[in-house]
Amino acid sequence: MSKHGIILFGHGARDPRWAEPFERLATKLRATRSDPVSLAFLELMMPDLPTAVAALALDGCDTVTVVPVFFGQGGHVRRDLPLVIDQCRSAHPYLTIHCATAVGEDDGVLDAVADYCVRQVGS
Amino acid sequence: MSKHGIILFGHGARDPRWAEPFERLATKLRATRSDPVSLAFLELMMPDLPTAVAALALDGCDTVTVVPVFFGQGGHVRRDLPLVIDQCRSAHPYLTIHCATAVGEDDGVLDAVADYCVRQVGS
Repeated sequence: MSKHGIILFGHGARDPRWAEPFERLATKLRATRSDPVSLAFLELMMPDLPTAVAALALDGCDTVTVVPVFFGQGGHVRRDLPLVIDQCRSAHPYLTIHCATAVGEDDGVLDAVADYCVRQVGS
Repeated sequence: MSKHGIILFGHGARDPRWAEPFERLATKLRATRSDPVSLAFLELMMPDLPTAVAALALDGCDTVTVVPVFFGQGGHVRRDLPLVIDQCRSAHPYLTIHCATAVGEDDGVLDAVADYCVRQVGS
């Protein structure tokens, strides 16, 4: 049976409270699916992406989709992330690894952010 | 007449394409309101927050709401931003400056991100 993992990939930060929205997001996703959902970070937080991918491979996933939880697509998403994904593909040749566009490029996400901004000004 | 500006505050990056979602967000918001909406960045991009606040004050705003377009609330939002906001308040004592919680803390935003993730795995 096919098992398709999701990895929510964030930048990472020194303050552990920074990761709270990522944890809430993972909890929301786990409520919608039985296949695994995990977090991974570019820097300053663990696990890193190779560790998270290895865990999903060990857990029996044949496909993993990495979703960059970033607003903008700058150097981290366009340059750093593809290098780490290549490294993960080399380490797990039988695993299919997809990489999504950053969530901030999605119109539904931007609409939700715009709605939040409107609520903040109460107009 | 009261004029209430919104500043979308982002981290900034070296790659100018990083700012595209912020520009799309500003365009969406401008379609919903007649009061001004502008962008400001913590680093690597211009304008910075003091410049954006000064422009809104000059434009006749009496209130400005700064919305941190960040997922997590780490050092940038908890420590750096309040210092810059204090500096803006000192420079514009007659301007009311509100600062919202980071957009990633909002449940509606997280629901939209979760929905995006589900669409990526096609399940």
